[in-house]
Amino acid sequence: MDATPKNARPRGRQFFANPGPTNIPDSVLLAGAHQTVDFNDPNFIAIYDACVEGLKRVLKTKQNIFLYTGSGHAAWEASFVNLLSPGDTVLILETGYFSLSWAKMAEDLGIEVRSVAADWRRGVDIAAVRAALAEDSAHVIKAVCVVHNETATGMALPVAEVRAAMDATGHPALLLADTISSLGSLDFRMDEWGVDAAVGGSQKGLMLPTGMSFTGVSDKALEAHKTSRLPKHYFNWTNMLTRRHKSFVGTVPVSFFYGLQEALRLIEQEEGLENVFTRHSRLARAVRAAVQHWSGNNGPQLFCLNPARYSDSVTAIMMPEGFDADALRAVALQKFNVSLGGGLGPLGGKVFRIGHLGDLNEPMILGTLATVELAMQVAGVPHTPGGVGAAIAALA
Amino acid sequence: MDATPKNARPRGRQFFANPGPTNIPDSVLLAGAHQTVDFNDPNFIAIYDACVEGLKRVLKTKQNIFLYTGSGHAAWEASFVNLLSPGDTVLILETGYFSLSWAKMAEDLGIEVRSVAADWRRGVDIAAVRAALAEDSAHVIKAVCVVHNETATGMALPVAEVRAAMDATGHPALLLADTISSLGSLDFRMDEWGVDAAVGGSQKGLMLPTGMSFTGVSDKALEAHKTSRLPKHYFNWTNMLTRRHKSFVGTVPVSFFYGLQEALRLIEQEEGLENVFTRHSRLARAVRAAVQHWSGNNGPQLFCLNPARYSDSVTAIMMPEGFDADALRAVALQKFNVSLGGGLGPLGGKVFRIGHLGDLNEPMILGTLATVELAMQVAGVPHTPGGVGAAIAALA
Amino acid sequence: MDATPKNARPRGRQFFANPGPTNIPDSVLLAGAHQTVDFNDPNFIAIYDACVEGLKRVLKTKQNIFLYTGSGHAAWEASFVNLLSPGDTVLILETGYFSLSWAKMAEDLGIEVRSVAADWRRGVDIAAVRAALAEDSAHVIKAVCVVHNETATGMALPVAEVRAAMDATGHPALLLADTISSLGSLDFRMDEWGVDAAVGGSQKGLMLPTGMSFTGVSDKALEAHKTSRLPKHYFNWTNMLTRRHKSFVGTVPVSFFYGLQEALRLIEQEEGLENVFTRHSRLARAVRAAVQHWSGNNGPQLFCLNPARYSDSVTAIMMPEGFDADALRAVALQKFNVSLGGGLGPLGGKVFRIGHLGDLNEPMILGTLATVELAMQVAGVPHTPGGVGAAIAALA
Amino acid sequence: MDATPKNARPRGRQFFANPGPTNIPDSVLLAGAHQTVDFNDPNFIAIYDACVEGLKRVLKTKQNIFLYTGSGHAAWEASFVNLLSPGDTVLILETGYFSLSWAKMAEDLGIEVRSVAADWRRGVDIAAVRAALAEDSAHVIKAVCVVHNETATGMALPVAEVRAAMDATGHPALLLADTISSLGSLDFRMDEWGVDAAVGGSQKGLMLPTGMSFTGVSDKALEAHKTSRLPKHYFNWTNMLTRRHKSFVGTVPVSFFYGLQEALRLIEQEEGLENVFTRHSRLARAVRAAVQHWSGNNGPQLFCLNPARYSDSVTAIMMPEGFDADALRAVALQKFNVSLGGGLGPLGGKVFRIGHLGDLNEPMILGTLATVELAMQVAGVPHTPGGVGAAIAALA
Repeated sequence: MDATPKNARPRGRQFFANPGPTNIPDSVLLAGAHQTVDFNDPNFIAIYDACVEGLKRVLKTKQNIFLYTGSGHAAWEASFVNLLSPGDTVLILETGYFSLSWAKMAEDLGIEVRSVAADWRRGVDIAAVRAALAEDSAHVIKAVCVVHNETATGMALPVAEVRAAMDATGHPALLLADTISSLGSLDFRMDEWGVDAAVGGSQKGLMLPTGMSFTGVSDKALEAHKTSRLPKHYFNWTNMLTRRHKSFVGTVPVSFFYGLQEALRLIEQEEGLENVFTRHSRLARAVRAAVQHWSGNNGPQLFCLNPARYSDSVTAIMMPEGFDADALRAVALQKFNVSLGGGLGPLGGKVFRIGHLGDLNEPMILGTLATVELAMQVAGVPHTPGGVGAAIAALA
Repeated sequence: MDATPKNARPRGRQFFANPGPTNIPDSVLLAGAHQTVDFNDPNFIAIYDACVEGLKRVLKTKQNIFLYTGSGHAAWEASFVNLLSPGDTVLILETGYFSLSWAKMAEDLGIEVRSVAADWRRGVDIAAVRAALAEDSAHVIKAVCVVHNETATGMALPVAEVRAAMDATGHPALLLADTISSLGSLDFRMDEWGVDAAVGGSQKGLMLPTGMSFTGVSDKALEAHKTSRLPKHYFNWTNMLTRRHKSFVGTVPVSFFYGLQEALRLIEQEEGLENVFTRHSRLARAVRAAVQHWSGNNGPQLFCLNPARYSDSVTAIMMPEGFDADALRAVALQKFNVSLGGGLGPLGGKVFRIGHLGDLNEPMILGTLATVELAMQVAGVPHTPGGVGAAIAALA
Repeated sequence: MDATPKNARPRGRQFFANPGPTNIPDSVLLAGAHQTVDFNDPNFIAIYDACVEGLKRVLKTKQNIFLYTGSGHAAWEASFVNLLSPGDTVLILETGYFSLSWAKMAEDLGIEVRSVAADWRRGVDIAAVRAALAEDSAHVIKAVCVVHNETATGMALPVAEVRAAMDATGHPALLLADTISSLGSLDFRMDEWGVDAAVGGSQKGLMLPTGMSFTGVSDKALEAHKTSRLPKHYFNWTNMLTRRHKSFVGTVPVSFFYGLQEALRLIEQEEGLENVFTRHSRLARAVRAAVQHWSGNNGPQLFCLNPARYSDSVTAIMMPEGFDADALRAVALQKFNVSLGGGLGPLGGKVFRIGHLGDLNEPMILGTLATVELAMQVAGVPHTPGGVGAAIAALA
Repeated sequence: MDATPKNARPRGRQFFANPGPTNIPDSVLLAGAHQTVDFNDPNFIAIYDACVEGLKRVLKTKQNIFLYTGSGHAAWEASFVNLLSPGDTVLILETGYFSLSWAKMAEDLGIEVRSVAADWRRGVDIAAVRAALAEDSAHVIKAVCVVHNETATGMALPVAEVRAAMDATGHPALLLADTISSLGSLDFRMDEWGVDAAVGGSQKGLMLPTGMSFTGVSDKALEAHKTSRLPKHYFNWTNMLTRRHKSFVGTVPVSFFYGLQEALRLIEQEEGLENVFTRHSRLARAVRAAVQHWSGNNGPQLFCLNPARYSDSVTAIMMPEGFDADALRAVALQKFNVSLGGGLGPLGGKVFRIGHLGDLNEPMILGTLATVELAMQVAGVPHTPGGVGAAIAALA
């Protein structure tokens, strides 16, 4: 097995500005490199329990949480199969690639999907959501599914406004929210916003490797679970409740908890959760300032046309007509060891994305932006030079 | 969050003789502590592809493999939902706690279960399997499900004999085999034995943390998949085949591949797969020699009464009447930092288990056995002293 | 550069029973794998200062400490060059190979050496020390040099009795003590015993890699330093006192402090320094019990013939006449991955040594002893089988 | 021991732009986190020997090398004490703080020092060196000591020209060169340039932690060693030659060799030594371009006024009159987690330094430069904005 890559990268640390997974702090990586332990060992259980409590604080919930060995998609599937029955209808608010994915998942599982369509660059209209709910006077819709932060477009959704629309129309559906690329980066308030299932993963704002995911679950949702009839075992909350850990069917992935314990220490004790949000907001403004500067002279521009929906954890950038985002990304990666995100689905080649979530600071952001500017020069992409200066000004 | 355990353990390395997950070599742990990368990065894909090929060699198959972010239970569920339809019938060979788990899972998913019952201490009778197949002349049984190595009882099943029984009766069912605690420890030959779905996980013989699992899939099974109607998305092989990695719905758990690359190097290049089996067999004999020595004087004895079914990766040990296995385990863990496996299900408190699979050698085994003997003295468990001497003799 | 070793070792963790350096706990190893920082960074200095205070507590001194980037030999040389002048005389108590090394070092540096000879297997006679001091009425001897724990013979020296002899004779010499293989393993009391220079290293009881060493220095010694005339710069305490860290000429080896911080946490907070000594004593008794058992039937025997001088951190074991210690060690290493210490100097081939200091517990000791017994069987070394049983009995 | 720093740093990776030690690649850090092994273990010796050969290739010598557990200062002291006798005279070429340090060291060791003075901002005049050598017709000067790359001023010295001056004057002195901050970053050719003792350390271009250093030694120097009379033991080459490893008195610091093996792989196999030099040169130009841009408008400027002496591994930057370099450094460190080097000796507060050696690439350099520009804005330091743009242009 000779897996030596043919494409050696420039020496020095890779800048991971990809919103897929995100940077993992050294201390989290090394904490996760822990020898195997018995997941029933009382010493491990003490760590486990503390982590679960910490996760609840990050979700801002006092209700329930279920964890899975799985990625974010697993947590979405777990939410569907634990809450719904064959033929049930869900309302999915279109936000971009990931909302489409959840719709496809729902259909694969035998669920009927209604959508509130949207202009991807402006975001779904809350009035349209309200209309769709009002129209459903028979309450056929069992769940409203939203993506708090659409990673594909770099746009956030005001979940509280969705809740308000549901309340205003007196709609009893459950509210399911994907917090995968927002939790631990943007403020998310499960209980205050009346979210019934909050889907999260390890590999974004929690700064862990990919492999563990979870659902914050309201008491109302747990009640609804009891009558759900979609087949399930691995993800079955009822099965989980019989076990010591009240989560996981099968072996508990202990490594993640050693990492999570350290990540929570960084988030809660070293920085403070609210400070985390402030930092994300501050760094995001710098990124947008750079892109807006570049956009003159027929340069690349912000994909999001609605400032109220700017995401503070990821920015999608639209290439000028006739220029390939993936060619630019290849220059950044191969020549300068900066990994940028690509466009997903219909945005492939048209958009590149800068992830600015997790373990990030000013020099990391500025180095990324400067290298994007360098890569544009190397690749011949038109732009107004000086984006880094605009970012510096935004940060000063 | 103060998770400092109340029970400080003795200084020094924990001996992990638990067959749950298993010891992870330092080089695998550190390889897995790799910074995040884009799972579409060509450099990562080169590693990924090499790992997939390596896994096939360990499974001894030239056919297909699908991987999941999930534990071993995920891989079983994936196998069921990809191969079966609601109301289908499977035949499960009873071997112990885990065969019961798979039966429960099948039922939860809407599958009918027939079982071949067995005395857990002697193992399922192949003649009874043959009879059950012969009786099913209508071929209602769509799949025969076996556990190659039952972790709960420390007993192995001759999968080739099950295949022979299927061939002899001309039964067309698929053969599904759980290799979770055998793969990379005991010889397993997917193609030669005509296994259609071989379920494996990262955390046993592959010496990785818990969190990734997979199914080796025969061409025949892949054909059967096309007509299966159990709802599925996260585990859906058809969805996977459309993706670059031909596996995983959602984010690829890259850390595991850095660890797996190193684990495969250790298994294939440093030691050699057949040598791995020889080592497991040799160390297992030493464990059994110690237990058999102890068993005199009303001491603990081997749970397995059928030498042909001894497992070379885990040994279950039956306590003398009136002595609690978990009390002994607590002494070993709290006083001497040796983690032994407990009895599962009906064997709780009656049995303790020594895992002897993965990254293990003579001093690790001898230190474990000596400490079990020490713990028996401390806990007042009757036994014939000198089990370590018997183990040394077996190894000399 | 292909450094792949030709001799692959058995899979599984190496048992490091060599008293050279010693086992490093995973948490210390990983703490040391810290990114470079500026050694003048206030955050680092906080860690540095805490470590220096911790080291003083382990040395049981409230006086001074100087640290060096260097091994234990560096700390001895630093002590000589900072305290003595060309032609000065030191009295060295013969204990074994290392006392000879210090004598050679002193001579290389232009210091006159007097020795108190001793039978290596019984240890130096304190009465002879007293006589040598009494005889030196002119006080030519400027320093008395002792090795608290002679790693080569597995024998400890009662430093307090040496101090008493100095006091009884009213001898004003400085008392220099090598604590390299005792500190953090055996009780050492610098201030109470009136030690003027206590030489220690990172790689033994402190459970760190090799590379940092230090001298605890009394106020009396610091005064003597002012008039010392041996040339020095790298080790010069006066140079050090002008620097922020009051130690190190040149770059501060920051990695060691991240490791030391964790090691001190393990020693002081998790286990307790006095408990560390108790554990070493307990495990050492088990080792000696095994060797004494083996010694019947013309087997190997304890090198130390004076029970009052048994070392609790290392045991030297004398082979039967006609059997080569290094051949036995090669079997243990190559076949079973257990690293034993060899005989040093005149003891080469005649003695092997078991280090039992640092991060060690019962299963590690028992696994080592059982494998030594196994290796003796494989190598045909005569012994009374059952040493492990004797060790178990000593621990029960 | 509570060493929690009072000054929490911004989340995200610290940018270490300090030329003290330098960035350590993750793979080197983790390779160094290796369990202890016996330094006489044949498997370790294979790695050791390969590393020594690799070091010789990096030094571009086929002659001798001696290694020390110690920092760079240890290697200088080792060179002095092994080559000189009390009262010998050395000629030191003044280059900055570190040349002064070596002069102080020489004097501390009883060596007479002559200096060739120099304007620190322009570098020593080779004609003056030649004059000093020509004047010494009695050949009192036993060694000429040069610093290849003066870390304190960011200036390189043409060692080959010094050799030419020695040859032209027929001076038989030994040529001693400090390569600490040049080796593995700038081209250094020990044999071609006739260097007799080349002093290097682990913590700069070799990208290891601080703690191991070495001297490349010519055959001529080894001959001179035989008659040197400075007292020595820990650093004594003659002692070393009697040992298996032909280096180190005392315990071999094994961790460093696991790290060095990986560092050499990165340097020689992954990147190529000559490519390493090219990269350093390229990145250094970008740094200088930024500084030169800033220098307009009474901004900070390059300390080095002689372009022929620009260092490609470190740049010293002179603050505008009235502005404190350390105040700027504190902003960069405390607010943005970028560690810049301070001014040494007489340059304290007047100069800050950017280290650009070792494991470095474009985004790291650009992120550092952008943050320096940001810090200048925050701290109110005058400068012409847009330095990052100039650096981008230099790299494009």
